[in-house]
Amino acid sequence: MRFIKTIISQMTLEEKVWMCSGADFWRLKSVEHLGIPTVMVSDGPHGLRKQSDEADFSDINNSIKAVCFPTGATTACSFDRNLLKTLGCALGEECQAENVAVLLGPAINIKRSPLGGRNFEYFSEDPYLTGEMAASHITGVQSQHVGTSLKHFACNNQESYRMTASAEVDERTLREIYLPGFERAVKSAKPWTVMTSYNRLNGEFTSESHYLLTDILRNEWGFDGYVMSDWGAVNNRVKGLKAGMDLEMPGSNGTNDQLLLQAVKDGTLSEEVLNKSVERILRKIFEFVDNRKPAIFDKEEHHRLARHIATESAVLLKNDDVLPLKATDTKIAFIGAFAKEPRYQGGGSSHINSFKVSSALDAVEGMEHIHFAQGFVTDVDETREDLLNEAIELAKSSEVAVIFAGLPDSSESEFYDRTHMKLPNCQNELIKQVAAVQPNTVVVLHNGSPVEMPWVDEVPAILEMYLGGQAVGEATVDLLFGVVNPSGKLAETFPIRLEDNPSYLSYKVVDNKIYYDEKVFVGYRYYDTKEIPVLFPFGHGCSYTTFEYSHLVVNQDHIRDDESLIVSVDITNTGKVFGKEVVQLYVQDLTQTAIRPVKELRQFEKVALQPGETQTVSFTLTKRDFAYYHTGISDWYVPTGQYRILIAKSSRDIKLEETITVTSTIDLPFKVTWNTTFNELVSHPQLRPVIYELLGVIGEENVDKEAQLEMVKEIPLRALRSFQGVDNTTIESLITTLNQLLK
Amino acid sequence: MRFIKTIISQMTLEEKVWMCSGADFWRLKSVEHLGIPTVMVSDGPHGLRKQSDEADFSDINNSIKAVCFPTGATTACSFDRNLLKTLGCALGEECQAENVAVLLGPAINIKRSPLGGRNFEYFSEDPYLTGEMAASHITGVQSQHVGTSLKHFACNNQESYRMTASAEVDERTLREIYLPGFERAVKSAKPWTVMTSYNRLNGEFTSESHYLLTDILRNEWGFDGYVMSDWGAVNNRVKGLKAGMDLEMPGSNGTNDQLLLQAVKDGTLSEEVLNKSVERILRKIFEFVDNRKPAIFDKEEHHRLARHIATESAVLLKNDDVLPLKATDTKIAFIGAFAKEPRYQGGGSSHINSFKVSSALDAVEGMEHIHFAQGFVTDVDETREDLLNEAIELAKSSEVAVIFAGLPDSSESEFYDRTHMKLPNCQNELIKQVAAVQPNTVVVLHNGSPVEMPWVDEVPAILEMYLGGQAVGEATVDLLFGVVNPSGKLAETFPIRLEDNPSYLSYKVVDNKIYYDEKVFVGYRYYDTKEIPVLFPFGHGCSYTTFEYSHLVVNQDHIRDDESLIVSVDITNTGKVFGKEVVQLYVQDLTQTAIRPVKELRQFEKVALQPGETQTVSFTLTKRDFAYYHTGISDWYVPTGQYRILIAKSSRDIKLEETITVTSTIDLPFKVTWNTTFNELVSHPQLRPVIYELLGVIGEENVDKEAQLEMVKEIPLRALRSFQGVDNTTIESLITTLNQLLK
Repeated sequence: MRFIKTIISQMTLEEKVWMCSGADFWRLKSVEHLGIPTVMVSDGPHGLRKQSDEADFSDINNSIKAVCFPTGATTACSFDRNLLKTLGCALGEECQAENVAVLLGPAINIKRSPLGGRNFEYFSEDPYLTGEMAASHITGVQSQHVGTSLKHFACNNQESYRMTASAEVDERTLREIYLPGFERAVKSAKPWTVMTSYNRLNGEFTSESHYLLTDILRNEWGFDGYVMSDWGAVNNRVKGLKAGMDLEMPGSNGTNDQLLLQAVKDGTLSEEVLNKSVERILRKIFEFVDNRKPAIFDKEEHHRLARHIATESAVLLKNDDVLPLKATDTKIAFIGAFAKEPRYQGGGSSHINSFKVSSALDAVEGMEHIHFAQGFVTDVDETREDLLNEAIELAKSSEVAVIFAGLPDSSESEFYDRTHMKLPNCQNELIKQVAAVQPNTVVVLHNGSPVEMPWVDEVPAILEMYLGGQAVGEATVDLLFGVVNPSGKLAETFPIRLEDNPSYLSYKVVDNKIYYDEKVFVGYRYYDTKEIPVLFPFGHGCSYTTFEYSHLVVNQDHIRDDESLIVSVDITNTGKVFGKEVVQLYVQDLTQTAIRPVKELRQFEKVALQPGETQTVSFTLTKRDFAYYHTGISDWYVPTGQYRILIAKSSRDIKLEETITVTSTIDLPFKVTWNTTFNELVSHPQLRPVIYELLGVIGEENVDKEAQLEMVKEIPLRALRSFQGVDNTTIESLITTLNQLLK
Repeated sequence: MRFIKTIISQMTLEEKVWMCSGADFWRLKSVEHLGIPTVMVSDGPHGLRKQSDEADFSDINNSIKAVCFPTGATTACSFDRNLLKTLGCALGEECQAENVAVLLGPAINIKRSPLGGRNFEYFSEDPYLTGEMAASHITGVQSQHVGTSLKHFACNNQESYRMTASAEVDERTLREIYLPGFERAVKSAKPWTVMTSYNRLNGEFTSESHYLLTDILRNEWGFDGYVMSDWGAVNNRVKGLKAGMDLEMPGSNGTNDQLLLQAVKDGTLSEEVLNKSVERILRKIFEFVDNRKPAIFDKEEHHRLARHIATESAVLLKNDDVLPLKATDTKIAFIGAFAKEPRYQGGGSSHINSFKVSSALDAVEGMEHIHFAQGFVTDVDETREDLLNEAIELAKSSEVAVIFAGLPDSSESEFYDRTHMKLPNCQNELIKQVAAVQPNTVVVLHNGSPVEMPWVDEVPAILEMYLGGQAVGEATVDLLFGVVNPSGKLAETFPIRLEDNPSYLSYKVVDNKIYYDEKVFVGYRYYDTKEIPVLFPFGHGCSYTTFEYSHLVVNQDHIRDDESLIVSVDITNTGKVFGKEVVQLYVQDLTQTAIRPVKELRQFEKVALQPGETQTVSFTLTKRDFAYYHTGISDWYVPTGQYRILIAKSSRDIKLEETITVTSTIDLPFKVTWNTTFNELVSHPQLRPVIYELLGVIGEENVDKEAQLEMVKEIPLRALRSFQGVDNTTIESLITTLNQLLK
């Protein structure tokens, strides 16, 4: 282990400042005489986008040939921690082989709207699932002694004006929705680095937020790596460094370094602060260089892994006995341009220069009973009648039609948001017309985020491949023919139409602000609480087998909030083939204390079961699983009362439930004032007798106390003045007395 | 005219303080030796609730016998300014006859949720309609030299914890939704008094808000009357007086007067401030006493007026050729307890001790072909099988069944909010079962706010009487038999279910706060913008005749925001009977500049037409009709661009439309900073050439400027540093140059 502090003590002020910004787009700087080498960082998150040193944003698709794994939106649907670890390991190996010290990812911003341009990179609308997937990905990459950069911290939930807009988010929403994914990943997987977002949060650039980068990230969560800026995110370099933003990327040609230097010289920036940043950066540089291990970037092996991950992640949205395709079918139609050239990744910094791509047609090469019709032109909205008619004819003459539909490349990318949620018209028309002539029509979707499906009731099966990576064609065929049984579950709700989305009325940057007015009601938290019909709910996914849920057991029916609850449930594969099921545990607060979503995902487990096999899944719930963030005490709080434990197949398919009681161990601060209501007063056992006596005085004789209370419960003490003629001095002394009783 | 200032100069400090609080629940104080008499105030708003001097809240239903007119929720549906004036005149006469100086009303809080306990007293979910109705009501009352008290100012939109809760409302929402009703009424009708609400607004009690009571009410809107507290709303008396809250009601037994006295003596309250409050109060006392006029409270005459108002306000929600009832019918069933004892008003301070009440059965007395079955018990949720069966049998044997349904008294009152939007189960079941046996089933509703109608598609006609006042029975019969043609239009949206309401997720007081998270999207502004199906839209109402809209003419297709636009349209009665139509004008902002409702009501006119008659209705639109409140300039702002003028029968039934262009005369403040984007820069003609030149420099040669701009439009100037290696000094001097060009 290096003596980092010794190195720092040997560095000049200029050298320290020098280390705090990039050498170019992809490399950190070196100080040769002190043995500090240059290391490289490269875009991820679902593949290695290693560019030449000189490359910049203007040449985004020019990088080394690599393997494009399924994107984050896809892999999250696996609900499979081990799968994400395996993916991470493979990426880490690639980095070792290519001498990349930090892979820039995972990207874990919450999907506030289906329109977010980078949603395809992000995991979920749910922070718990997001955090679990991120932690697993990080653990995998870092097991290879390669760093990750958890991004984009925080609240970059749209592309529009991302470099200047301020996300206006209240504290509770931040704590419950936008931060917990980061929190979970940081606490459990310790990423080497965190990348700030471009945007401002409540007016302040996240790259300058001491609150985010030091108070929360380091002091609360214990992050010990370094923080880097998103590329070009630095606004005020000196403020940023003070806030905890260690490394400016891609550097500023020295102009910001000068500001740091000057600030230290002026005394407006403490050299100790600078030393800390340098130390954090150096530790991770040496952690990489001191732990190099020989690695081979086996592209073919990783292509097979990409295929496996895609099959484990795809979601069978609907299946009315059409899938899997039968070996006995004599004529199958593959229809749609994506069967030949699949859409499998999005645009921008995550774009991989895939060394090869397998299409579904490639995967069925040699199967002569499968016929192809293009159906539509990928990047075009209008129907090409000749292609449509050819497809209809083929569908008619086949026993089953599989339509490979999806969004064109141009619709999903970093840099801009989608403007609608629709498939191109030509594809919707194709699906409707094919379904009209062929009852056995399967739609395979290639898209990074939800689309409207005006034909949903007209086709018997829909297979959502999301953006399945370069092996998507083989993966799709594996699933269609039942070589693999689909087991993915939606990591986000598919609304029926864009207008249903909770951010529909506020997803627009105006005067450089974007207001998160829906607060904690993001995704299923909104749809389920408002009981809005959806196309497919969060957590939904079909299988070729069936599962039965039984024997829900909670180990206690009453706990304190500092105790844990153990929940177990049996899952049985009651069908005829091997399959995997994602058991989901949601908690519902029944106390009516705060405004809360009707349910929140708190645990999940993916189990693999042979036909007839039963497994018991066990979950441990602790305080956070029942709590909401109480801004009054700046802490998590569990109101005393009843909570429902829901065991579910999706957020809208609850299989079993149990109700338990949790008792809070926290006394919320309470002080009697002129505006304390009788309701509040009698909720305190010490005050109740006094108040009852008082009510006896102010009301008529012989009136039942509870009835009396019901009438005045929302009345504050000061109103005794107007309604009972009590004078201010008497009320004041009553307040003093009551406060003394509370001590 | 009295010399008020002279009187004040003769008053002692104690006498001045004395005048600033009530003598008891209903009287102001007198100073005999100065000739200041006592005057009385009494609850309204839709009738006179004159109590004895000693009465207080504990005896709320004990007042003089008077006339209960239809409540505010009902009369607003008339969309008839003259009708409201007539109502006001009648109320003013009653006050003169009863020596009441100020009638406490109108009550005009916006219906944020259908659950609001006092919604039945309030006019609408729309601030323009609210303001017009309020102004007319006030003008009517005050024409009789009796004052009004416009209430509750402001943002008391629920009953729960109304004495302590803080309405958390952003400035734009305040200005666009919750204040404009008050603004319009104050500016155009000059109410003698304004009553503060109980609640806090953004943390501060409205009775202590200098911002509301002085900055806005007096300085911006020119209010020159006095402000009184709602009964018991005073928190800090000294702060309140300073803020502009002149009169404390009902007084505090002198204890708060002592505080005022002490504050003047301490020098913490200026005697000048006190003088002003006394002056305002005295002016209105003498305005009343110096203008007394002989008046008779003719109860029977006002009962007839109540009947007229009810017929003009009722809304025919649906009518598939069942109404009006035919004179040739040989057997008609009147079903439901409300046919005998109608529900016609709500509970609380507006509750009138009606001198008589006419039921529908009273109104058809002697018509032997009308038969009655009770059907249900009013205050009970469960079905009484015997009553149900009797009703079914009667319906079966009749040619038509009219069911008198509605909410029980207990469900709508001051002091508490509703918890759901449902009719009692027994009534829903009765309607379904009667409709099943009798295709000609009419439902007459008695309710102060929307109810769910699970049977809406099963009955051919629904007549919404709201809370129709004491003559509701006769009014209903007038409408059922076509003596009067229904012409009311809904002043609020009827959502299908409570969950659809925009405040559904935030209509709960927690920690003494209630967050207005839906912002300006209240009522149809939400339903229509989110395109949520509704039961009946805002502005909807059927008629026994038909109307045709034609010849929409705008006098210009392009105006500046300081010019006005004249819009005219022809309305023709194309049916066979006399009828009235409410022509509604909505404006839609097409500029995409701000986040705005898809349409907003800006004008309406009710026209009366004989069969075949055509009238031209003309509207004048000015700046405010196109504007939104821009918090950056604290003023109304009309973005330059296109606006659509919609002429409509309801918010969802647009008959004609025209698009015009409005050009802003306001230059929004603009200063170039490090974070100014290229988009912002090129929108300024002075800067465009410089920026184009700059883009030529930073991009490749011969690249089209607009394409270049498209790529960098959201990039801020500071990013030239990271992406182009431009140094800070150069950027700084560029900013300086650009700002100089702007001068």
